[in-house]
Amino acid sequence: MMIDTPAVVIDRERLDANIAAMATHAAAHGVAIRRHVKTHKIPEIAQMQIDAGARGITCATIGEAEVFAEAGFTDIFISYPVYLSKRAIERLNALAGEIRIGVDSVEMARAAAGLREDIKALIEVDSGHRRSGVTPSSEALTQIREALGSRYIGVFTFPGHSYGPGNAKQAAADELQALQTSVERLGGGLTSGGSSPSAQFTGAIDEMRPGVYVFKDSQQITSGACTEDQVSMTVLSTVVSRNVADRRVILDAGSKILSTDKPAWMDSHGFVLGQPDARVSALSEHHATIFWPEDVELPEIGDQLQVVPNHACTVINLVDEVYVRATDGTLEAWKVAARGKNS
Amino acid sequence: MMIDTPAVVIDRERLDANIAAMATHAAAHGVAIRRHVKTHKIPEIAQMQIDAGARGITCATIGEAEVFAEAGFTDIFISYPVYLSKRAIERLNALAGEIRIGVDSVEMARAAAGLREDIKALIEVDSGHRRSGVTPSSEALTQIREALGSRYIGVFTFPGHSYGPGNAKQAAADELQALQTSVERLGGGLTSGGSSPSAQFTGAIDEMRPGVYVFKDSQQITSGACTEDQVSMTVLSTVVSRNVADRRVILDAGSKILSTDKPAWMDSHGFVLGQPDARVSALSEHHATIFWPEDVELPEIGDQLQVVPNHACTVINLVDEVYVRATDGTLEAWKVAARGKNS
Repeated sequence: MMIDTPAVVIDRERLDANIAAMATHAAAHGVAIRRHVKTHKIPEIAQMQIDAGARGITCATIGEAEVFAEAGFTDIFISYPVYLSKRAIERLNALAGEIRIGVDSVEMARAAAGLREDIKALIEVDSGHRRSGVTPSSEALTQIREALGSRYIGVFTFPGHSYGPGNAKQAAADELQALQTSVERLGGGLTSGGSSPSAQFTGAIDEMRPGVYVFKDSQQITSGACTEDQVSMTVLSTVVSRNVADRRVILDAGSKILSTDKPAWMDSHGFVLGQPDARVSALSEHHATIFWPEDVELPEIGDQLQVVPNHACTVINLVDEVYVRATDGTLEAWKVAARGKNS
Repeated sequence: MMIDTPAVVIDRERLDANIAAMATHAAAHGVAIRRHVKTHKIPEIAQMQIDAGARGITCATIGEAEVFAEAGFTDIFISYPVYLSKRAIERLNALAGEIRIGVDSVEMARAAAGLREDIKALIEVDSGHRRSGVTPSSEALTQIREALGSRYIGVFTFPGHSYGPGNAKQAAADELQALQTSVERLGGGLTSGGSSPSAQFTGAIDEMRPGVYVFKDSQQITSGACTEDQVSMTVLSTVVSRNVADRRVILDAGSKILSTDKPAWMDSHGFVLGQPDARVSALSEHHATIFWPEDVELPEIGDQLQVVPNHACTVINLVDEVYVRATDGTLEAWKVAARGKNS
């Protein structure tokens, strides 16, 4: 198979290992896994996760849930405070299988009355990330619970403040406290949490929803959640320009495939696999600029390099298909079935 | 027409005005326009640009050129130092019409011998952006010219250092000098330049290739290249969560539609149209976090807001279609035909 670069390439052996390791980790802690498919958006990978013992899947949007329901997945949690417009309610009611949604306002808890009776709801609580979710100690928590009635089955949170070096352990503790405080106040319910970095410290919660661990990325390495040799997804790119005097190398992988995700605590847009000092210092739409390390020979025009992107989830959403490389080197194309399903 | 949010919406009247203004500006300076279609990737908009008097179009990749050639465009410049693999040469030779490519190395100037004779080349020179392109004073410039032979028709540059407040005028001067120095050394040739911010200072060059001016964006406003009332493209989004005490509002437009492009000289990921102080301070994949201005009433859950993104080009590449709103309010869907064409 001939691949035009830039292209997303997945190492099958590492992908298998990452899925197996998370299954083992969760089993050891007695925590169920409801893997987040927003990272890969690929039914083949979700099926590998289910086969490894996942309870069901997590989606970010109704559109993603539609793709995965169509592909035969029957236990889907949309872990998002979905705005329940008339049309959203129709789309949710049309989904086959066991469906759960997130709710973080009294308004939406009331609007949920329009949903099919077997669609259940989890209340989103904020464990310190300051994004969506109600404060565990707030009056809103009990009001939402009351408005949901029998639709209520538990609470969830996303400890997004786990990202950043050294933050994961505290974030996991915050998560556990937020979930426990909430279910105690509500007289019970499922507790759902877990980002990829905080998963390693997961405590007494019922289920976790890690996503990016299947691929790993530069952000996860910098966060301390994984090592370079666990990275299963890279962007294959070609050297298109070089300036010997400046030791500058330009790759054809730009922001339209690597994405520009770069939290303040990171100093680059990714790096070359096997050359951790060859960092992408600038990114245009179709150019990655690397000032090549002094002690390493400068690549030639036409050389192909694998770039470890900062954030796997936004990279996958930029391509229609990925190339999965088996240990014997053969490539298979898998469709990113839920690419672009933002709504 | 019912739109599920988040969605890209284009104001037709402002789009028309932006295209007309650039045509008037270019005509007044006697500079031809070869508009960059990477910004919109939409044949309907490219046709509007041609109708307004553009000389031809500029693409970033062979894949984009294939889409626009298929749509009937016959004068296409791929302003990129294309890596001429065997397959790239086959794809270029299969394109109908008048085709031009960029070259910035002796290796590729030689490889260009495999191209159809009527495919012409422009040498890329670096005018200060330190990305691809050879230095105008370098030996490489004349060596590439020699290797190209009769395929050579001129030089081009992208003065990308025009971005950033106050940089545009100097970048336009650098661009002019780099192009003039180069054609003087080479004994003549076409000079092609022009970013959207520097276009306002464009001097004695033959053609310019602005792209983002059709839509404008938050980056262009901050750069001083336009004002808010010229913005023709926004991301329609819905308030999905709010925290009254914290004055925090969460929209359903995240990094998977707004993209995370944020140069160091910008302090947010975009802002709400008509509310310039309502800035997106954090962006997750499906959440935009806005700390709402104290003196403005907090929006309700379900309210729809238009977000002006930081960078129009990366937003368009995240959606399959855009909604074009006429002055009478009617909406029409246009397909982003070249979305994802990275190679």
